[in-house]
Amino acid sequence: MNEFKDELRRVGEEIGSFLKEDAFPQTIRPGILGDAVRDYPGRGGKRIRPALVLWACELFGGDREQAIPAAAAVEIYHNWTLVHDDIIDRDELRRGKPSTHVTLRDHAATRLGAAPEQAQAFGESFAILAGDIQQGWAVERLASVADRGVDPALALTLVRAMQTKLNRELISGEALDVEFELLDPATVSEADVMGMINGKTGAIMEFALHCGAAVAKGVYDPKDPDFRALSRYAANLAAAFQLQDDMLGVFGDEKVFGKPLCSDFQEAKPTMLYLEAVRHLPAGRRSELDAFLRLPHYSESDIAAIRALLTDCGAAGAVRDSIAALSECAKKSLQPLPDNRWRGMLATLVEQMLVRSV
Amino acid sequence: MNEFKDELRRVGEEIGSFLKEDAFPQTIRPGILGDAVRDYPGRGGKRIRPALVLWACELFGGDREQAIPAAAAVEIYHNWTLVHDDIIDRDELRRGKPSTHVTLRDHAATRLGAAPEQAQAFGESFAILAGDIQQGWAVERLASVADRGVDPALALTLVRAMQTKLNRELISGEALDVEFELLDPATVSEADVMGMINGKTGAIMEFALHCGAAVAKGVYDPKDPDFRALSRYAANLAAAFQLQDDMLGVFGDEKVFGKPLCSDFQEAKPTMLYLEAVRHLPAGRRSELDAFLRLPHYSESDIAAIRALLTDCGAAGAVRDSIAALSECAKKSLQPLPDNRWRGMLATLVEQMLVRSV
Repeated sequence: MNEFKDELRRVGEEIGSFLKEDAFPQTIRPGILGDAVRDYPGRGGKRIRPALVLWACELFGGDREQAIPAAAAVEIYHNWTLVHDDIIDRDELRRGKPSTHVTLRDHAATRLGAAPEQAQAFGESFAILAGDIQQGWAVERLASVADRGVDPALALTLVRAMQTKLNRELISGEALDVEFELLDPATVSEADVMGMINGKTGAIMEFALHCGAAVAKGVYDPKDPDFRALSRYAANLAAAFQLQDDMLGVFGDEKVFGKPLCSDFQEAKPTMLYLEAVRHLPAGRRSELDAFLRLPHYSESDIAAIRALLTDCGAAGAVRDSIAALSECAKKSLQPLPDNRWRGMLATLVEQMLVRSV
Repeated sequence: MNEFKDELRRVGEEIGSFLKEDAFPQTIRPGILGDAVRDYPGRGGKRIRPALVLWACELFGGDREQAIPAAAAVEIYHNWTLVHDDIIDRDELRRGKPSTHVTLRDHAATRLGAAPEQAQAFGESFAILAGDIQQGWAVERLASVADRGVDPALALTLVRAMQTKLNRELISGEALDVEFELLDPATVSEADVMGMINGKTGAIMEFALHCGAAVAKGVYDPKDPDFRALSRYAANLAAAFQLQDDMLGVFGDEKVFGKPLCSDFQEAKPTMLYLEAVRHLPAGRRSELDAFLRLPHYSESDIAAIRALLTDCGAAGAVRDSIAALSECAKKSLQPLPDNRWRGMLATLVEQMLVRSV
């Protein structure tokens, strides 16, 4: 356990110092846009995605130093999607600080004297542009593995995979999530939700692992049995992670979780937890569930009632069972891979996600 | 002249059919997002940027077929920036048809039954995501020159240049343009405006020419005299083009120009034409000029008065002189380059821009 935490801390330090070395945001005009480009990637977070790159590289005996630019690239890629998602979802906070469009909005209001509506538009416009530059930054950092001895043809292949498969799966996942908000949540199928989760969370985990493996093996081959094992691991891990997130959104501790409880109910999101409840409740009791959608505020008694409803009908138990099964599958996916310290890290990551309270 | 037009038509056909062959947008979910990704690149337009790629390649005796994916990539790159710019600038039309966020907004309203505000948010969200996928698409297409025999190391170098220099210059240009709207236009310096123009219009012209030259020469070297000559040509061409655009926005034919006359005055944009007027007008007459900023509507008599003011003070003449001088410089920049049909095309392009009415 301490070994795992130490390793994750080491990844954080490696990525942090690699990002700091890159002085390019200073060349962006105006300067505030350059600051915005640096902002999220510099905030830290758990650095799970870069860890997947580095551990997959080590798993196959690769040179960790060669993979660091790829690990940073995956982290930047993740962050540009967050910048754009936060505009789309109107999230004002990211990792406990103002989100990019909010920081930029406040800059326009206080430094440039913009009126509130103007400042809001400025914040969103600049945040769109900041994410656009970050996407470019991520691609360039991935390409730069060639500067550390990776064959340029392989680096090019990785860039192409990032800008086709990863880009499209990830963005399709976000788009489905946006579209779901306009639909009656009960009409969305579980398959659609799992597809959305795999795009939004699984695709980048898979890409991270494949990048690390490719640097180690000198070849990127998604059909190779090792790559396929990593794909299965990523898909199961991502699904378990997202279902756990759904559960924490209702049953977690608001202070630890970092956003208001039941916000998925407020946004009428078709989470797996909600869909399980629809499936478990007798038709006559559906209205009890749907009465909790889109409330302006969730009181303690609302939250208690939602928890009781989800528990009593068996939905909460069903989701917990799914999480356990998905976690088991994720760990089993690792069996064909080399049995070493790094496979152990990947297995521990699954367990850590299960016990997480955030 | 006919030869020039025929060549431009040929470029349009080559790019059009190359883009059509690429079936990937069909894999994007939901389908409407895939349609949005295809939309602008498929609309055509003058295809000047891809022409610069192909002509620069031919100029140095390169294999045009090898450069076609790069030409398409530059066209897609230009288009993703337009998709995001149209959200930022709230432009409802692009090449005479609804802009991407408007098409998507209407889809949400009519097909998904969204209320007006919801539909607006959906349209903008999906348009952000469509541009994000297009950026990925452009990078992948550029990388694919390696499939046509370009050295993968060179393809990687071009991708890196696209995602650092071009990406940052272009987006910084757009960001400065957004920031200018919050400033008193008279406080913006001519150097700032020329810097904005060079980022927004010049950077992609330069990159297009460099891409074509690199495919032909097998090396990308911005310090090489040929590359530097192309850079000078691009910077002058872009500035002449933008100044001509400023002029047409006041003195052009609204039906041909495609948007309301004096819209730069309405948005209080610090165009070079406006800044020349500030410079030429005696201090006592500045208020006459500024009285025409941010009007809700520009009547025929307003337009006539603005034209008279800009002409009488000498600003219009000064801008016309600048356009002529920049065009001359653009053509002179071509002199050190091989004297062949393709250099002729580049020279004719300068002249055609001068006589354009749109």
